[in-house]
Amino acid sequence: MADSKQASGDFGGEGSRVLTADAIAAAVGGTLHGDGSARVSGVAPLDRADVTHLTFLANAKYTALAEDRELGVLLVTAELADAAKARARIVVKNPHEAMLPLLPLLYPAPSQAAGIHPSATLGRGVSLGDGVSIGPGVVLGAGVGIGARTRLDAHVVVGEGVQIGAECHLYPSVTLYPGTQIGDRVRLHAGARLGSDGFGYVFRDGVHAKIPHVGRCIVEADVEIGANTTIDRGSIDDTVIGAGTKIDNLVHVAHNVRVGRLCLLMAQVGIAGSTRIEDGCILAGQAGIAGHVTIGRGARVGAQAGVFGSVPAGETWSGYPARPHKEALRAQAAMFKLPSLIRALERLVEGRGDSER
Amino acid sequence: MADSKQASGDFGGEGSRVLTADAIAAAVGGTLHGDGSARVSGVAPLDRADVTHLTFLANAKYTALAEDRELGVLLVTAELADAAKARARIVVKNPHEAMLPLLPLLYPAPSQAAGIHPSATLGRGVSLGDGVSIGPGVVLGAGVGIGARTRLDAHVVVGEGVQIGAECHLYPSVTLYPGTQIGDRVRLHAGARLGSDGFGYVFRDGVHAKIPHVGRCIVEADVEIGANTTIDRGSIDDTVIGAGTKIDNLVHVAHNVRVGRLCLLMAQVGIAGSTRIEDGCILAGQAGIAGHVTIGRGARVGAQAGVFGSVPAGETWSGYPARPHKEALRAQAAMFKLPSLIRALERLVEGRGDSER
Amino acid sequence: MADSKQASGDFGGEGSRVLTADAIAAAVGGTLHGDGSARVSGVAPLDRADVTHLTFLANAKYTALAEDRELGVLLVTAELADAAKARARIVVKNPHEAMLPLLPLLYPAPSQAAGIHPSATLGRGVSLGDGVSIGPGVVLGAGVGIGARTRLDAHVVVGEGVQIGAECHLYPSVTLYPGTQIGDRVRLHAGARLGSDGFGYVFRDGVHAKIPHVGRCIVEADVEIGANTTIDRGSIDDTVIGAGTKIDNLVHVAHNVRVGRLCLLMAQVGIAGSTRIEDGCILAGQAGIAGHVTIGRGARVGAQAGVFGSVPAGETWSGYPARPHKEALRAQAAMFKLPSLIRALERLVEGRGDSER
Repeated sequence: MADSKQASGDFGGEGSRVLTADAIAAAVGGTLHGDGSARVSGVAPLDRADVTHLTFLANAKYTALAEDRELGVLLVTAELADAAKARARIVVKNPHEAMLPLLPLLYPAPSQAAGIHPSATLGRGVSLGDGVSIGPGVVLGAGVGIGARTRLDAHVVVGEGVQIGAECHLYPSVTLYPGTQIGDRVRLHAGARLGSDGFGYVFRDGVHAKIPHVGRCIVEADVEIGANTTIDRGSIDDTVIGAGTKIDNLVHVAHNVRVGRLCLLMAQVGIAGSTRIEDGCILAGQAGIAGHVTIGRGARVGAQAGVFGSVPAGETWSGYPARPHKEALRAQAAMFKLPSLIRALERLVEGRGDSER
Repeated sequence: MADSKQASGDFGGEGSRVLTADAIAAAVGGTLHGDGSARVSGVAPLDRADVTHLTFLANAKYTALAEDRELGVLLVTAELADAAKARARIVVKNPHEAMLPLLPLLYPAPSQAAGIHPSATLGRGVSLGDGVSIGPGVVLGAGVGIGARTRLDAHVVVGEGVQIGAECHLYPSVTLYPGTQIGDRVRLHAGARLGSDGFGYVFRDGVHAKIPHVGRCIVEADVEIGANTTIDRGSIDDTVIGAGTKIDNLVHVAHNVRVGRLCLLMAQVGIAGSTRIEDGCILAGQAGIAGHVTIGRGARVGAQAGVFGSVPAGETWSGYPARPHKEALRAQAAMFKLPSLIRALERLVEGRGDSER
Repeated sequence: MADSKQASGDFGGEGSRVLTADAIAAAVGGTLHGDGSARVSGVAPLDRADVTHLTFLANAKYTALAEDRELGVLLVTAELADAAKARARIVVKNPHEAMLPLLPLLYPAPSQAAGIHPSATLGRGVSLGDGVSIGPGVVLGAGVGIGARTRLDAHVVVGEGVQIGAECHLYPSVTLYPGTQIGDRVRLHAGARLGSDGFGYVFRDGVHAKIPHVGRCIVEADVEIGANTTIDRGSIDDTVIGAGTKIDNLVHVAHNVRVGRLCLLMAQVGIAGSTRIEDGCILAGQAGIAGHVTIGRGARVGAQAGVFGSVPAGETWSGYPARPHKEALRAQAAMFKLPSLIRALERLVEGRGDSER
C-alpha cells in the first residue's frame, strides 16, 4: 500500500488552509465552547480525526469513535456537546450541514496556472479568454473559442468550432465533438464525451445506412457532467442540457433529447432519442427512459425503472414497466404474495370447473 | 453561454457547402416550385431555419413554426406545399427521408490532412497505407498496420501488432489493446476500449487468480461502435463483431462473445461471456444477456430486458426475466391487476378453508 | 479486413515463446503420448490450431473440429486421447484448466522498457521507484509517488499527491484524481476514472449547490478494475475497494462506498453512495445497489437485480425489487402463470359477489 502518512496526501493532495475555532464558529453561527484559537487544517470523519482536524458528531451511536482521543474542532449538537473531548466544540443544530460551507475554505480548489502548456495543439483561429489554462496534450480544433478563466486539463480534445463559456473546468481526457456548445461554469468530468453522432441508421439495400448527424449538443450554464458520461449531438435538431442540471457518471443521453433546467440524472441512467425531460426532474440510478416521451416538470423516476411512456408533471414513477410509484409497490407486494396463494387458487378454480386452462 | 452566432458554429463547425434548389430537386427527384437558383448552405429544423437553410415540413401541426418568416429551400409534402413561405419549395413524398442523402453534400466530413502529427509516437515496424492521418498524441505500438485513408484522431492508442483496415475513423482517445483487429470502414467513437482482458478468474489458494487472455478482439468491416463502449478480447478463442453491425454508447461486450452481421446493439446493453448473437438481431437499450446463450438470427430483445436463456430466431422477447414479448406483456398487465383482486382472493381462499398458507 | 496471417498477430502481437511437449507434460503433470520434442509457440482453439499450437479437447462433440489435420500438442482427457491427431498428446483430467498456467509461459506479459517517455509531464516533487515505466503523454501532478516496477501506459493522468504502489499496471488513458491512493499489484484498465467528485448537491436558493468532496478513493492491493469504470472519491469519509477485489468494465461505485476484500463486481454494476459491500460478495452484471445499505459477507446478487435494502451474509438475492433468490424465482414463475388464471379468477370473484373492485 502506498504511504498515506503525509498531510498533503490525507485529503487528496490539494493544499489545505488553516482555520481557527473562532472563525469557524462565526462562519456557521454556532456557540463556541473551549479554545477559540484552536487551529485546524483539514476535515476528517470522527474515527480518523486528530487535533489538526475539523470533524463533527451528530448521532450518539458514533460517540465511541472519538473515545480516548482529543479532537481539534468539533461541530456537535447540543445534546452531544459533552460526549467527546476537543480543543473547541461548536454547538450547531445540524453539524453535517454546517460543515459543508467550510470545505471550500479549508480546501480551496487547486489552481492551475493560466497559460498554454507547450505540448498543447491549437488549430487556426482559436480564441482564448483571459486567464484560460490549457493543460498538457490538449488539442483545440480550428475556430474553437474558450471563455475567461476556463481550465482544460490534460488530453482534453475540442472539435472544430466548439464554443466553451467562462469559468468552466474540463477534467482530463474529455472529448467535445464538433457541434458542441458549452455555457459558463460548466464542469465536465474525466472521459465525458459530448456531441458524438447519435445512433441513427436506415436499413436500405441490405445495410444499416448511417444518418448523418449535424445537430448540436448544447450544454447550458452551471451544468456538471460525470465521468465517462456520453451525450450525443442531435441529428438535425439539437440535444440540449438545461442550465443548472447535474448528471452523474456513465449516463447516456441520446440524440435530440432535451433535458430541462435543474434536473438530477443519477449514475447509469439512459435516455433514448428525442425524449424531453422537463425542468426539475430527478431520475434515479440505472433508470431507462424510452424515446419520444416526456417526463413532466418535477417528476421523479425510481432507480432501475423502465419508463416506456410519458410521466405526468410532479408524479413519482417506478418499476418495470414503470407505473405510479404506489401502484408499482402494490403490484410488487402482490407478486410476492402470489406463490403462497397460487396453488390454493388453482385448486379453487379447478374445483369450480370454470378454469380456462 | 458561448456565442453561437457565427455560421460555422451553427452545425458543428464543420465547413458546409452550398446547394441550389435546382440541384436539390434533381437529387431527391422532387417537383420544384419557385426559384431554382435559391441557394442554401446548411440545414435547420423548421423553428430555426432562415433563407440560408434547407429545411422540411411533413406534418400540419408544425406549420406554425415557420409563420411570418421566409425560408430558403423547403422539402414538403404535396398537401402542405402552400403552408409555408420559401424561396423554393420541393414537393416529395417523404420530406425527412429526402433530406438524409443531402446532408453529406451540405456537410462533407471534415477532412484531416493526411500525415503524421509530430507529437505522435510510432513503434518499430509500423506500416501505414496511403493517405493515413495520425493525430496529435497518437501512440502506435510495434508492428501496427493501418490501411489506406484511415484517420486516427488525437490520443488514440494502438497496441503492439494491431491491424486496422482502410478508410476507418477512430475518434479521440480510443484504445485498442494488443490482439485487436479492425476491418475496413470501421468507426470507433471517442473513448471506446477494444481488446481489454475479459473478466475471468479462478478462485485458488484464497485469491481470485487471473486467467490470462490471449484471444483476439475482431471487428469486421463497416462496424460502428459508440463512445465509451468496451469490448473485451477472447480468453483463448476470439471475441467477434460481425460486418455491418452498429453498437451504441456505453455497451459492454464480454470475452468470447460472437455478434453476427448487421446487428444493432443500443446504448448500455451488456452481453456476458461466450454468448452468441446471430445475424440481424436488435438489442434495445440497457438489455442484459446472460453468458453462454444464443440469440437467434433476427431476434429482438426489448429495452431493459434480462435474458437468462436462449432466444429462438425471429422472436421478440422482453421483460425480466425475459419471455416472448406478448407473454411478458400479459404477465405485466396481470401483475398490475393483482392488487385489486388479491384481497378478495384471500377471502375467497380462506372462506373455502383450503389455503396452504 | 486487415491481414491476420503473421504469427505475431495471431494472439495479440505480444511476442510468444516456445515450449516442448516434454516441458508441457512436466508442467501440468500429464501423461505424454507421442513426440516429446514437438514444439509449440502459441495456443489456439481446436478449430484454428495447427502444428505450431498448443490446444485442448475435453468434449466429444468437438472432435470434428480437428479432423483431417495434424495438431501440435494436444491436452486431452483419457477418454478422448485417440480422437485427434497430434504430434504429442498429453492426457490430463481437465484439459482447459491445465492450459491456464501455461499461458503466461507462452505469452509473457509484454514488457515496457523502464524509463520516462520524453513526452511525459512530471510535476515538482514526483517520486518514482526502481524500474518504473512512464509512457507517452503521461501527466503526473506535483507530489505523486509511484512504487517500483509500476507501469503507466500512454496518456495516464495522475492528480496532485496521488500515491501508487509497486508492480501496478495502469492501461492507457486512466485518470486518477487527487485524493486517490493505489496499493501494490493493482491493474487499472483503459479509461478507468478514480477519485472523481461524488454526485452530491444540496438544493439551496433555487440551485443544486455542490457539496465539496475531500474524502479519498483508496484502492487496496491486488485489485483489478475494468475499462471505463468510475469510482468516486468520498465526500468527507473515504471510498474504499478492498484487497483482491476484481471489478469489471463500466461499473459505477459512488462516494463513500466500502467494498470489502475478494469481491467480484461484474460489468455495468452500480453501487449508490455510502453502501457497504462486505468481503467475498459477488454482484452479477447490471445489478444496482441502493445507497446506505449493507451486502453481507459472501452474499451474491443476481444479474440486473435491484437491491433496495440490506442483504444478509451468505444469501443469494435476485429480482426487482430483489428478494432471496428462491422467493424471487417463485414470484416470477407465479407471475407468468397469472394471465391464464386471471380471467377465471375474476369470474370466480365476481360470482361470489365479494369483489372489492
